[in-house]
Amino acid sequence: MQTIMTLAEVARKLDGALEGDGRVQVSGLAGIREAEPHQLTFVANPQYAAAAAATRAAAVLVPEDWNRPCSAALIRVRNPDKAFAMAAPWFAPPPVPPLQGVHETAVISPAAQVAPDAAVGPFCVIEEGACVGPRTVVSAGCYIGHGVQIGADCRLYPHVSIREYCRIGSRCILHNGTVIGSDGFGYVQEGAARRKIPQIGIVIIGDDVELGANVMVDRARFGQTRIGNGVKVDNLVQIAHNVIIGDNAVIIAQVGIAGSTIIGERTILAGQVGVAGHLTIGSDVMVGAQSGVSKNIPSKTFVLGGPAAPYEKSVKIHAMTMRLPELREKVTALEDRLARLEQSGKAKQ
Amino acid sequence: MQTIMTLAEVARKLDGALEGDGRVQVSGLAGIREAEPHQLTFVANPQYAAAAAATRAAAVLVPEDWNRPCSAALIRVRNPDKAFAMAAPWFAPPPVPPLQGVHETAVISPAAQVAPDAAVGPFCVIEEGACVGPRTVVSAGCYIGHGVQIGADCRLYPHVSIREYCRIGSRCILHNGTVIGSDGFGYVQEGAARRKIPQIGIVIIGDDVELGANVMVDRARFGQTRIGNGVKVDNLVQIAHNVIIGDNAVIIAQVGIAGSTIIGERTILAGQVGVAGHLTIGSDVMVGAQSGVSKNIPSKTFVLGGPAAPYEKSVKIHAMTMRLPELREKVTALEDRLARLEQSGKAKQ
Amino acid sequence: MQTIMTLAEVARKLDGALEGDGRVQVSGLAGIREAEPHQLTFVANPQYAAAAAATRAAAVLVPEDWNRPCSAALIRVRNPDKAFAMAAPWFAPPPVPPLQGVHETAVISPAAQVAPDAAVGPFCVIEEGACVGPRTVVSAGCYIGHGVQIGADCRLYPHVSIREYCRIGSRCILHNGTVIGSDGFGYVQEGAARRKIPQIGIVIIGDDVELGANVMVDRARFGQTRIGNGVKVDNLVQIAHNVIIGDNAVIIAQVGIAGSTIIGERTILAGQVGVAGHLTIGSDVMVGAQSGVSKNIPSKTFVLGGPAAPYEKSVKIHAMTMRLPELREKVTALEDRLARLEQSGKAKQ
Repeated sequence: MQTIMTLAEVARKLDGALEGDGRVQVSGLAGIREAEPHQLTFVANPQYAAAAAATRAAAVLVPEDWNRPCSAALIRVRNPDKAFAMAAPWFAPPPVPPLQGVHETAVISPAAQVAPDAAVGPFCVIEEGACVGPRTVVSAGCYIGHGVQIGADCRLYPHVSIREYCRIGSRCILHNGTVIGSDGFGYVQEGAARRKIPQIGIVIIGDDVELGANVMVDRARFGQTRIGNGVKVDNLVQIAHNVIIGDNAVIIAQVGIAGSTIIGERTILAGQVGVAGHLTIGSDVMVGAQSGVSKNIPSKTFVLGGPAAPYEKSVKIHAMTMRLPELREKVTALEDRLARLEQSGKAKQ
Repeated sequence: MQTIMTLAEVARKLDGALEGDGRVQVSGLAGIREAEPHQLTFVANPQYAAAAAATRAAAVLVPEDWNRPCSAALIRVRNPDKAFAMAAPWFAPPPVPPLQGVHETAVISPAAQVAPDAAVGPFCVIEEGACVGPRTVVSAGCYIGHGVQIGADCRLYPHVSIREYCRIGSRCILHNGTVIGSDGFGYVQEGAARRKIPQIGIVIIGDDVELGANVMVDRARFGQTRIGNGVKVDNLVQIAHNVIIGDNAVIIAQVGIAGSTIIGERTILAGQVGVAGHLTIGSDVMVGAQSGVSKNIPSKTFVLGGPAAPYEKSVKIHAMTMRLPELREKVTALEDRLARLEQSGKAKQ
Repeated sequence: MQTIMTLAEVARKLDGALEGDGRVQVSGLAGIREAEPHQLTFVANPQYAAAAAATRAAAVLVPEDWNRPCSAALIRVRNPDKAFAMAAPWFAPPPVPPLQGVHETAVISPAAQVAPDAAVGPFCVIEEGACVGPRTVVSAGCYIGHGVQIGADCRLYPHVSIREYCRIGSRCILHNGTVIGSDGFGYVQEGAARRKIPQIGIVIIGDDVELGANVMVDRARFGQTRIGNGVKVDNLVQIAHNVIIGDNAVIIAQVGIAGSTIIGERTILAGQVGVAGHLTIGSDVMVGAQSGVSKNIPSKTFVLGGPAAPYEKSVKIHAMTMRLPELREKVTALEDRLARLEQSGKAKQ
């Protein structure tokens, strides 16, 4: 059942221009460094130009103006990245048959509402008052708490848990182990000990949101923790209580956002960034990887570093820091020269 | 079933002084930036003073000596933060009915002991020799290993797992997906490969401990990994084998503590901090966010940075680093002036 | 059923030389700082030499050339660390009886293949086409997706999930909550929104791999995310799509590796390291804790810092940065001296 296509067919379906033998057959895809002679690959990132000269692939999808050497046939396309994404499903393993119906082992409260065309896997628990929308798939071992609302066409992978009263929009994807609505982290100090502040708010997640595996979104202390429409969150991200994330923001793996911070629309937080609490990060902000954000950031800014500073400044400061030995040598040389001058001055007196 | 109260009632119940129309009704709570005209809010953090001037809330809980402009009625209280925490439950959704009894799907070893008034949710597994104390709630899908002991009045949220022989005190809260007693990370190198060192110790967790969602506490290589009484741990924290955490310590999200390190009482590790192994961190230490701790730290110290240094020093060094361009300009100016002096000296000779 | 041994027996079984009373009995092991009078401990790390002088242990395993004071009996051995690892199981709680057979609650597709001597715990789901090899143990609540292949003698702890078509070698250990094959994080921007790039590759994990608790390994966008033989990964690590990790590499807790990066054989990434995407990290590389790697790294290099630089350079630059106040004072002193010289020069004119 493996798909086999000729390069001529591939080029035609991708609306590309083939340079090479159209009769050669391919049966799969791979990265340019790993590709074997029966595979198709692509170059979108200039870093891989060298690899193109040595690839063992049958053919490489390249940009239309490509002029570097290549050891394989070329298929020139307008956007190699996009073309490759289009070709990938042709050769992929057959998609998994969709989960259907409600598994007999699922424990669903009679006071929960599951749409007739939703699917619920084995060992799921759906509590009283919860609603699961049309065509939504709740995979094995998920926990859906009291009064939770999930929209239409969502996909929850195994072991997701959503605590009471949280609301998920439509067309959302939640990957394995993600937790929505765990308690926010808040205490009142009483002597050396701490008394827990009840966390009685909820989490509201918009439409078209994707949350990676083991993403943690804490419920609000009161009111709502909110994730806007179209937000994409990578694995192992921490989103604390009362955080608000604007539409179409992108949060890369292992980012942590502390309580009550507001992230603007389309803002991108790169991997392992930390953002302190009670801040306002504007829209269209880019925060570089591993940065620590401790102040508000205006919209349309690119910041980097710990603590985060404007990108150009951060890069400049870093470069100067790496040249500190040189600066110190200059200062030592100045001291020597100045001492000689002072000596000669005294000698003249 | 929504609670509605007048501002007069709110002020009276909070023992506060109202400035505004006592007949106005509120039906909920929200943050000062999001509050709507039927909601109550508060200001505890001076950062929000500006927001108070523009809030749409019906009333704001403020400190007794508040003297800033505010667009809403005021209720002066001794501690707005605490008063708000007290008011929050009045307006919250009804608490979820507590889990009761042992769900028929739970798989409980006949050689396990579950207190008659403990609750065990669907799809839980409780192995041989495990003990679950009075009034403790084990939510859906938890795994309680062989010989595990859990005290009274604990709450385990869904998907917690506790491996063999670990012990949890009383009144502990473990959030979704938390793992207690996974193997510590230890190997003996044998050529290029590594042989696993058996991890045969346990984890002991004190009373009144709260562990966030997806907290990982590894079992000891031998002996015990220990978490003291009253310790509070946020989401996605890593606590390695043989770590000892003193009473009432606070560990914020995404912190990692390497093996055999000792953390003193009441010490606070802010978000994303990393602590190397085999260290002793004193009591009442504060470690700033994202710091990297590579040396012992004496008690009552505030450290910051990577590697962590005393706070004031760290802040000073950072400020100087950010002024490196200015320092380099000074050195260049010195070089020019010195060259002129040297020239004029030569000219005179 | 507690094991009790005399020091003479311990010394004999470890092939060590006892200095002290061979009749003294020990019944357990502990760290040198926590050990009690009936316990055995060891010193391998020079940091603990001071603790050896004060330990309450019955005896301490020490290196053969040990010449520091010690408050307990000594047992001189060639490798105290290894000897201790050998002694640990003698005193450990009885190992948990191995899971056997297939639990009646497990939901296993009739089109899955489970070896007759494999074990499957309660509430596991094994989908169509999946294969579980001989003697492999799948603990409670695991999810094994369509067409997944797991080799022989593996151990999956509770709540592991492996998505469709991924392949695990033999003798692998996967700790609680680990997720294999979740979607890689990839989108094509379309205006403000993002269209998901199908992630249709798989994950291939070699033999003798250990993955800690809540490790996330994303499936490839196409082709394979690959983890080599003998790789050891600590808790809460993020491995993105299309990453390739060489044999015997070691990845410590909370590391994040971005998409398409290649990590060489035997390379060690210390805790909380971040590695950018599309990089090649050589073999036998050591990356210090919390470093940020943004460029390719040649083999046999030790790097540190954010961004990572060669270790010696990084340490030197850090030392100089910490002495910036001193450098600035020197520059100020130079300015003063130079101004005086300039003044005296003018005075003479």
